[in-house]
Parts: sequence; structure tokens; C-alpha cells
Amino acid sequence: MPSTSGAPAVRGLQGRDLLSLADLGSGDVTTILDAAARLKLAQADGTPHPLLPRRTLGMLFEKASLRTRTTFVVGMVHLGGQAVDLMAEHTQMGVRESVPDIARNLERWVDGVMARVYDQNVLEELAEHSRVPIINGLSDRFHPCQVLADLLTLRERLGSLSGRTLAYVGDGFNMCHSLMLGGALTGLHVRVGTPRGYEPDPAIVEQARDIARASGAQIDLVSSAEAAVRGADAVYTDSWVSMGLEDERAERLAAFGPFQVNADLMAGARSHAVFMHCLPAHRGEEVTDDVMDGPQSVVFDQAENRLHAQKALLVLLIGGEAALQALPR
Amino acid sequence: MPSTSGAPAVRGLQGRDLLSLADLGSGDVTTILDAAARLKLAQADGTPHPLLPRRTLGMLFEKASLRTRTTFVVGMVHLGGQAVDLMAEHTQMGVRESVPDIARNLERWVDGVMARVYDQNVLEELAEHSRVPIINGLSDRFHPCQVLADLLTLRERLGSLSGRTLAYVGDGFNMCHSLMLGGALTGLHVRVGTPRGYEPDPAIVEQARDIARASGAQIDLVSSAEAAVRGADAVYTDSWVSMGLEDERAERLAAFGPFQVNADLMAGARSHAVFMHCLPAHRGEEVTDDVMDGPQSVVFDQAENRLHAQKALLVLLIGGEAALQALPR
Amino acid sequence: MPSTSGAPAVRGLQGRDLLSLADLGSGDVTTILDAAARLKLAQADGTPHPLLPRRTLGMLFEKASLRTRTTFVVGMVHLGGQAVDLMAEHTQMGVRESVPDIARNLERWVDGVMARVYDQNVLEELAEHSRVPIINGLSDRFHPCQVLADLLTLRERLGSLSGRTLAYVGDGFNMCHSLMLGGALTGLHVRVGTPRGYEPDPAIVEQARDIARASGAQIDLVSSAEAAVRGADAVYTDSWVSMGLEDERAERLAAFGPFQVNADLMAGARSHAVFMHCLPAHRGEEVTDDVMDGPQSVVFDQAENRLHAQKALLVLLIGGEAALQALPR
Repeated sequence: MPSTSGAPAVRGLQGRDLLSLADLGSGDVTTILDAAARLKLAQADGTPHPLLPRRTLGMLFEKASLRTRTTFVVGMVHLGGQAVDLMAEHTQMGVRESVPDIARNLERWVDGVMARVYDQNVLEELAEHSRVPIINGLSDRFHPCQVLADLLTLRERLGSLSGRTLAYVGDGFNMCHSLMLGGALTGLHVRVGTPRGYEPDPAIVEQARDIARASGAQIDLVSSAEAAVRGADAVYTDSWVSMGLEDERAERLAAFGPFQVNADLMAGARSHAVFMHCLPAHRGEEVTDDVMDGPQSVVFDQAENRLHAQKALLVLLIGGEAALQALPR
Repeated sequence: MPSTSGAPAVRGLQGRDLLSLADLGSGDVTTILDAAARLKLAQADGTPHPLLPRRTLGMLFEKASLRTRTTFVVGMVHLGGQAVDLMAEHTQMGVRESVPDIARNLERWVDGVMARVYDQNVLEELAEHSRVPIINGLSDRFHPCQVLADLLTLRERLGSLSGRTLAYVGDGFNMCHSLMLGGALTGLHVRVGTPRGYEPDPAIVEQARDIARASGAQIDLVSSAEAAVRGADAVYTDSWVSMGLEDERAERLAAFGPFQVNADLMAGARSHAVFMHCLPAHRGEEVTDDVMDGPQSVVFDQAENRLHAQKALLVLLIGGEAALQALPR
Repeated sequence: MPSTSGAPAVRGLQGRDLLSLADLGSGDVTTILDAAARLKLAQADGTPHPLLPRRTLGMLFEKASLRTRTTFVVGMVHLGGQAVDLMAEHTQMGVRESVPDIARNLERWVDGVMARVYDQNVLEELAEHSRVPIINGLSDRFHPCQVLADLLTLRERLGSLSGRTLAYVGDGFNMCHSLMLGGALTGLHVRVGTPRGYEPDPAIVEQARDIARASGAQIDLVSSAEAAVRGADAVYTDSWVSMGLEDERAERLAAFGPFQVNADLMAGARSHAVFMHCLPAHRGEEVTDDVMDGPQSVVFDQAENRLHAQKALLVLLIGGEAALQALPR
């Protein structure tokens, strides 16, 4: 929907977009995580929860996806609705038809749109011209749905987020951006360790620090993996060569070598620290097998929580808090 | 289903094909439009209408699609069923398997088939060898589903169709063919303005005039856009370079230049005239931004009405008039 | 799920994989065929049977599919759930992400996985690392779902399987392998006629003969089509050039010429013998039009029975025998 000013936390979530976590207030994040925990329990119990009966979610994929596709489709099925792949590769967004015109069409048919795009601007343009919620399923700037799942995972493991420390080591790219914003909203300190030249966008660091003033979260940038993980409760990494950057591969492998998450690096974090990754993992590059498959790894819990966090998001954005009332407590 | 002779208007619609609007009688069109209006109201009211529970529609796409794909999928979800993309690009209709054999398979599994094909003959072949309804989702000859949505849109805007005039300017291709037939069935005069060499198929003009004898519609061909739109209640255009004709692009842009729908041309129509387009629009080619985005434009209503008209069609072809009875009045 | 030892026939089917028919006991096959017959009747009667409400089946396709895709999708719809195409061509199994990691993700979201793969080992790897059932939707080694449908078709036509004879003529490849195993489990004699050099894998012949000891089925290899079909109750063939073997085309056409199923060959079988093919058929190659379209042909019944057999399989593997109880008798 077209962006509006005003304090997001006091409005309900129904009808809003999620292009970046900065679109949410800290209260919104809590609302989503609480709903996710309830929906996860309902799923585990076998309690039916068709909270969005016969509602539809359009999906636009400009890039490959396993987790995002599957969790949105399965989530809509659990909720009694259905996700529709709009076959963006055929639709050729902005080529066969302008992005605003695509948005003006879609809002007539579906109850929400999830888009994985190369360029965050396409999401902004979709949102500006559509009355239905637009959800960012990964862009060159952000990955908010992944971070909602990550915050749910951390809350399950650590009990609370506020005052805990997450170390992000690797590429200061979309995952890093959204983790800083997620930490800022929930009081989770985020310590980012990147090679020189791969730091996160200073404007987003600034934005995260602004948001963090209310929560007390610290957003710190350091230049070694060791400094990042020292005393951390969670160590997070991501692929060194994101989709679309394959031609920088050799140069990146060289730069990121010292930022590999291996047993030595994990030993610098707290003993109970969890290892996190948004997947797919490139074993032997950004993470070693022993860490990925070791007892500290929560990577498949994160993957599972994509489902629960996004179901909560879908119910709240499409059906609103009222739709959630139908869920047995 | 194999074509049968007899007066279509007196049979019910259940089990029939829609390869061309000429497959319908004028009473059938009214039945479909009335059902569409009721289903549109039910959707707006939030009245559940799962009239085709767990029924399935197979979809074969030889060409790209946004509107057709989305509206058929969403329509089936609203009706409690599901559309299945049969991945015709993998199926390679007529290559990996003969079209008759594909039809003989599909009729065993799905309750109907919607196909977007390059060649109308493939639709005829599917229909000949399948007991389940075959629906034309766009071919080189016709686009009947679009015209059902257009007639619904015109009826909403103009109150009635009979005695009104629609001007079609541009390429005398599939859209033009189906609009002439739709006008002929409903008493809507259709005035077609095309460049020389791009006139509609004379056999279809003839067929439309035959059908029009009963309704009183006039089907006229003129050779300028200005003559076509004079006094019209609706001005309709379509892409100058249809899918598959990209190599004629330069020559077509030259020929169609004088047929652009712009403010000057619209001024020749009646003051209340609506602007129509089946989309995607090529802004700056067949239509200017000011017309496309102006107050006379109903293009996104047409797009929305694809959903409602096709839901009506699906209910009537698959479930029959009986299935429609379950819809609250 | 990871393979376990033990007698399959005495365990229930819930939670098990179907990578090869050898994963089943003869009692399991009867359970599946009986359930399939009941589900087919329910479908014909219009009796709703949503036995897997809001359950999901992930589908991985490395190769093209019409029958497998459509029947699994439609089957899940009939059962109240939904199949999700995981877009394996995007997922790039084993390239973008390791197969074990894909399995560890999928088990968190879906209730089962159907995979069509080039290499049986990928299925084994998925099954080893996933707690949810993995179903073979065609590999280089086996096609168990097709043979369940074939056994259902034969049982319908012949009344029983035990002591009957099926002649398989053509390529001793995946279909041949699964037919030998299916015969071995049900007491159906299987006589295989192939050109020299295209015999079935001796290890699978051995495995089939081992299994056949309990049922009394004879598994015989002969070197001419005529010897294979003599006195047979069913004559089965398959494409001479399977997907992925297109570069052996010329050489294969030469070798398989004498194995064409035509009227002359059919005359060697019993007069009531049925003609079977897993489709797609290459008319004029492995089978002539007169046989394919003649009164002995049951090829479209086989195709239809894919739906019913797989619905039974899905209910039993995902929901277990308990889920089947909900089906009205």
C-alpha cells in the first residue's frame, strides 16, 4: 500500500507492507513473534487454524528460492488459503508491463503480494501502487522475513532478546542490514564483523542506531570476526557470494577467508552460543561442516521458523488482529 | 468436449467448451454475465462461495500470462477448488506427446482445462478428444474470456449493451475478433478501425454479422480511427505487436501510428465514453498515459472482471446451473 | 525417512518411503490397491474424501512430467491438501545446496516429498536425511507409482494378479525393473523380452526372483518379443528412447525395431490380453496406432489409475491407516 506517515506501532498491522523491518515498530515485532509462537504450537498440536480461508497471496520471484517459496506456499495452505506463483520470469516486471501497472492489476485479485526482487525499488514501486500488502521476500537491501524467523529462533533459545548479543560475520549485505534493524527494534545488540570494503550501508547503520535508541540495543561495526564474536550469544553468517554476484567470486573468497565460522571462531563466543545461517550454506566456505552440523547449530530451526513467522505475518497483514482471534488459545 | 450440433442457447452450459464466443448463444452470455455479477457481489460482501469444492482446472500455457493465470488460479481458490499449471512448456504439446493423447489423459484427472495457445487448432483438437470443458485462454484467433470481462465492465458502466457502440481501433486480430462476436451476441454495435492490411478475418466478420442478425448489432469496418470512435460509448485498443509477432515490430509501429488512442481521439467519442484495453498496455504506443490513467479509463476494472467473469464461466461449465444455486442471493 | 531393517509388511505404512517397490511387502501392496479402489469409487460417487486436510506434498522435478505432476497435484486437492512444486530446476539440487541440507529443510515444512530425479541415489540421500516420506516419481532405476497404477488396472481387468502373465517388451529399464518387482510381490508372472544389450539390471532380476519365491511369480527373460507375449494376459511396452538418452536415438530405433507392439505381436498373446503403456507413447515406434487405439488398449485407464493409486499411497504414507478410516465404506 502507499506509504503513510505516523507511528506504525500504534496502528494495527492489517493492510500494511513489509518492505524493511524499519516499517515495523517494536510492538509490531512482538505482536508478530507472539502470533508466530501461537501458530507454531497450533501446528505441532494438530490444531486446525484456517485463519485466512480462500485468501490468496501472489508470489513474484525474480531469483531462485527454496525456503521462501515453500514456506509461503505451505503457510497459506495451513491458513486455508493459497499462494499463487505469478511467474515473474514470464511476466518480465517492467518489460512486458510497467511495475505500477502490474501492481494496479494484482491489487484487484489477490489479498497480498510477496516479491523476491533484485532491486528494492521494485518493491517500493509495487507498494506505492497497490492497496494490498506487499511483503519483501528478499531484495538487494533487506530480508525481513528471514530476520523475523531468526528473532523467533533466538527468543526460543535464549528466552529473551533484549540485552543479548548477536555477532554477524561476513558480508555486510541484505541479511546484515535486516539483522541490525531487527536487533535495534528488539534490544538485541548486533556486532558486525566484515572485511574492509564489505561493510553494511552506512545509511542503514545510521537508521538502525536511530531505532536502537528506544530499545537500548548497540549496533557496532568491527573489522575482525574474532572481535565480533567475543562473548556473543549467537554467531550468524551468510553466503560470501550472494545471488547475482557470481562474477566477484574469486575476489570475495580471498577477502572473506578470515571470516569463516569454524570451531576456533565459535570458541570465542559464549559457550551456549548458537550458530545461525539463513541458508543455503556453502559448506567449507563461510561455515565448516562441524559447526553447521554441530550441537550449537540452529540453522534448520531458523528454516522451520520461516514458516511460523510468515504465517503470523500473513494473518496480521491480510486478516488483521481480528483474524488471529479465531486461533484457539 | 467433442462439438455437437444443435442450438447452444437451449442446452445448459455444463460440460460445454468455450473456444470462441460463437460457441455461446446470446442467452448463455446473459447467464454468464448475471452469474458474474452475483459472484462479484459475493466476493465484495465476503460471502463464501465454494461452489466447486475440490474441483480442479488444468492450465496449459504456451505463452506468457499474468492476468489469465492469476485470475483462473484465484478464481478456483475462491470456488473451493484449485487450478493446476500443467507446465505446457515441459509437456511440449504435440512434440513429447500428441495433442489428442494429452486430451485423453487430462479428461481422466481434471474437471476442466484452460489453454493459452499459439494455434486455435490445438484448442479444437483438445476439445475434440476430451470430455471435460476446454476454455480458450487466448489464441491466435480469439480471446473469449477477456470479452466476457469486457461485456461485464460495459454493462456496469453503461447499464446495458444493446444499442450501444464500441469502437475498436488498432490490429484486427484476436481481441477484435472476439469483440465483434461478443457485440453480435449482445446487440452491442462494434465499429472496427484498422490500418489497411490489418483488418479482421473476413470469415469472422461474416460470422459476427450472421449472429448479429438476431440481436440487431451492427458490425462495421472503417479505415480510420476517427471514423471508428465517432459517437462511440467505448473506445477499445490492444497492443500493436502481439506476442509472437515481435519481428514485425518496426513495420507495425509505422502502420498503427495514426491509430493511437490519445486525448484527441477520445474527444471524438461521446463525452461519457470509456477507454478499454485488455492489457498489458504499451504506454506511448497504442495508448497515451493521459488516456490510460485518465477518468475515462476502465482498464483495471476490466482486469478485475476477468476474475468474476471466469468464476461464473467455471461454475457454469464445470458445475452447471445447479452449482450456482448454492450461491446465496 | 532413514531406512530401517525389519519386515515391512508387518509395520504400518505411515512415515515410510517408497523409493522402490522392494520397500513394500506384498501385504502393503494389497493395502494400497484396496485403498485405491475405495478412493476411486468415492471419486466416482462424488463422495468427499478430504483425508489429508491442509497437508502438503513437496514435489521436486528434475525431468519433465505431465502425468506425475497432474495426478499428484489433483490427488492432494481431492484429499483436502495441496502439492507444492519446489521448482527443483531453480533449487539446483546438490549445486546451490547439498541434497542432505535440502532434505533437512523440507522435513520441517511439508508432510511428504515426491521427487522425479535422474539418479536414484538422490532419492536415497533425500530419504536418509528426512523424517517425512519420500516418494519416487520416476528415476533412472524405478517407477513404482506407475506400477501401482498398473497393478490396479490389471486387477480391474483380470480380476486377480496371481498366476497371470504380463509380457514386457522393449527396453529393460526403469519401468521393466518396477514391473518385475511388482509382479514378484503379487504373484504376477513377468516375462521380459528385450534386444541383446538392453536387458534389465541383473541385480534387480535377482532381487525380483528373491521376492517372487514367496508369491510364486516367475520372472523370465527372453530375447524376442514373440516369446515374451506368447499366452500373456497383458502386453506392456515403454518408450525406446527414455528422457536423457536422446543421443542414442538412431542406434536404439534399430535395435528395438523387432520389439514393436503391433497387431501381429498382440495376436501372439491371449485373446483377452490387454495392451499397456506408461505413456507418453511414441506412436509408430514402440506401438502402432491400431494397438494403442484398439479395444485391447487400457493405457488411459492406467493413466487415470495413477491418480487413484497415488491418492491411496499419500493417505497411507502421510496419514496412515487411521486417516483411511475416515473414508465412508
